Amino acid sequence: MGKNRLEAFSDGVIAIIITIMVLELKVPHGADFKVLLPLWPVFMSYVLSFIYVGIYWNNHHHMLHVVQQISGGVLWANLHLLFWLSLTPFVTAWMGENHFQTAPVAAYGFVLLMCAIAYTILARALTAHHRENKALADAIGRDTKGWISIALYVTGIALSLWYPWIGFALYICVAIIWLVPDTRIEKRVA
Amino acid sequence: MGKNRLEAFSDGVIAIIITIMVLELKVPHGADFKVLLPLWPVFMSYVLSFIYVGIYWNNHHHMLHVVQQISGGVLWANLHLLFWLSLTPFVTAWMGENHFQTAPVAAYGFVLLMCAIAYTILARALTAHHRENKALADAIGRDTKGWISIALYVTGIALSLWYPWIGFALYICVAIIWLVPDTRIEKRVA
Amino acid sequence: MGKNRLEAFSDGVIAIIITIMVLELKVPHGADFKVLLPLWPVFMSYVLSFIYVGIYWNNHHHMLHVVQQISGGVLWANLHLLFWLSLTPFVTAWMGENHFQTAPVAAYGFVLLMCAIAYTILARALTAHHRENKALADAIGRDTKGWISIALYVTGIALSLWYPWIGFALYICVAIIWLVPDTRIEKRVA
Amino acid sequence: MGKNRLEAFSDGVIAIIITIMVLELKVPHGADFKVLLPLWPVFMSYVLSFIYVGIYWNNHHHMLHVVQQISGGVLWANLHLLFWLSLTPFVTAWMGENHFQTAPVAAYGFVLLMCAIAYTILARALTAHHRENKALADAIGRDTKGWISIALYVTGIALSLWYPWIGFALYICVAIIWLVPDTRIEKRVA
Repeated sequence: MGKNRLEAFSDGVIAIIITIMVLELKVPHGADFKVLLPLWPVFMSYVLSFIYVGIYWNNHHHMLHVVQQISGGVLWANLHLLFWLSLTPFVTAWMGENHFQTAPVAAYGFVLLMCAIAYTILARALTAHHRENKALADAIGRDTKGWISIALYVTGIALSLWYPWIGFALYICVAIIWLVPDTRIEKRVA
Repeated sequence: MGKNRLEAFSDGVIAIIITIMVLELKVPHGADFKVLLPLWPVFMSYVLSFIYVGIYWNNHHHMLHVVQQISGGVLWANLHLLFWLSLTPFVTAWMGENHFQTAPVAAYGFVLLMCAIAYTILARALTAHHRENKALADAIGRDTKGWISIALYVTGIALSLWYPWIGFALYICVAIIWLVPDTRIEKRVA
Repeated sequence: MGKNRLEAFSDGVIAIIITIMVLELKVPHGADFKVLLPLWPVFMSYVLSFIYVGIYWNNHHHMLHVVQQISGGVLWANLHLLFWLSLTPFVTAWMGENHFQTAPVAAYGFVLLMCAIAYTILARALTAHHRENKALADAIGRDTKGWISIALYVTGIALSLWYPWIGFALYICVAIIWLVPDTRIEKRVA
Repeated sequence: MGKNRLEAFSDGVIAIIITIMVLELKVPHGADFKVLLPLWPVFMSYVLSFIYVGIYWNNHHHMLHVVQQISGGVLWANLHLLFWLSLTPFVTAWMGENHFQTAPVAAYGFVLLMCAIAYTILARALTAHHRENKALADAIGRDTKGWISIALYVTGIALSLWYPWIGFALYICVAIIWLVPDTRIEKRVA
């Protein structure tokens, strides 16, 4: 099976996820600048989620760039990742509307954690199907960033039950770690 | 006519269908974990529909993979399938919000049934246009899975009028049957 | 300029238009079949609009199939068509929610009329840019169907001010005329 | 990295942005033409934003047409542009619902300004990656239109605090300036 439609479908779903989140920025009543102020937690959540979904799109792009063929297992591992990403708008809105309280911040971290796990499963499914593709296998094999992220998410979820802002800060840290694109694969290709 | 735009358009519509369903997961009021509990029927409906739409995308992908040219009839058979798929978010939300009661579960099954029939019509339209394409014709000819699904849907709709949970369980069975990708076509290609 | 991105962007916009219309089918309160009954005008509007948008996508597909290069004018003629198509969900919902009363049926016809005019402008822009492309120029030159449609829309809008159902019936007639794909171009290509 | 997925993803996001704005045109209660009248400010906002997003799509199309390879920096510069574009529906709705009052018109201008700055950053990121691509570098180097736009936005934002209609008129002027496609690049290619 070729990868083109998988990429096109994933691009479509990710494009919709990243865009419908803005619908949670409800248009305020009133025409003063000060009616925008209460929107800042929703806006901050939106910014972080936009960056996260952007990171997933970037890394998805990089990872599929080095493969040519995909199996049925990869199709489902990819849908599994899209499923958890599709829950991002829900937890983003819940966290923003409740001003970063305990439970919503933990739930947000949980969805991020599941996305990270789903991404790891997709990477494994791709390597299983491309054992001969050294560029992919080697690059994903040393998945230090991935494991650090998962550790930070788990810590963030646990801490957010007492100090939600520390949890939120840890999620920002993970985003910063990933904002640097996945140069492992780029270097291998070069 | 080439198939590229048909695939791109179908990918777009299916990507939107699979993603807007999550908008029915309304952000709850309150910041406790317990406000998430009443969402479980909507969430379960969402999970099942996500899997169903994923199955249709996968099979659509497989079926169009083995053809090159499409006719006007195929374009309309495809739009007919997309029409019934587009009703999935509606019945998903109705079933979830009413906690799997009789009528919504039957309506959900009816839309699944119509999708299955529309998929069969699309398969027939493709084979009519590709009589020489033995790979496609033979593969679709032994459409055992398709007929079992239709039988299970009809049984599920009928039973759901008395025992909606049995209907729902049957719809899950059909999903499990199809989760295995359509290896008939993969084998033929190999 | 190549036509690929124009097609991809148009596919995306048309896919979203055809899909978000279903969001107007509001999930009813109550779990009986009889709560579905009041939805029939919205559903009928949805079906007609789905067919119309499908017709535009099909014809757009056919028309762009025979050209290779596009100009800046074509880009804007295409955006102009997408603009009027994007108003379809609005008039569809207005017509459905008001049970096919006078003003909404006329407004629906007006948007259809503007789509038809925009499509004609796009066809002219394409032929202006492809004077040497006889297949395209000849086919579009004998635009009988297009002129009949515009005449039927104008009649439908006028009549709908007194007998909205006759207006609605005329819009259905136009859809039936176009359901037959634009064989003019197909024949030329053959 | 190839540019195809960047284009496909951007097309998807821009297609969704341009289409979901129409959802702010809320279906009015009542079936008279006169219930449409109060919608005119929202409709005018929608028309202007549709044109703006169309301009960005056109220029994005033109600019990426002359490059072949993209870097990680370009991916993020592109996401940054999409972020500001994604705020367009929010400010469009706020401006329309408040009948072009002071603060919403200034906020609308601010988002347009940030889009223009983000577009400039994307152009710089592309030229940094394509120093040898004279066609791109020269064309973007004389970015007169871009600087005039930014100056008009800043003036419009400032004036809109006292005379919002003048601010709005200036935003329309910028749109008119850009409605002429970016012939700089087209000429270079020729």
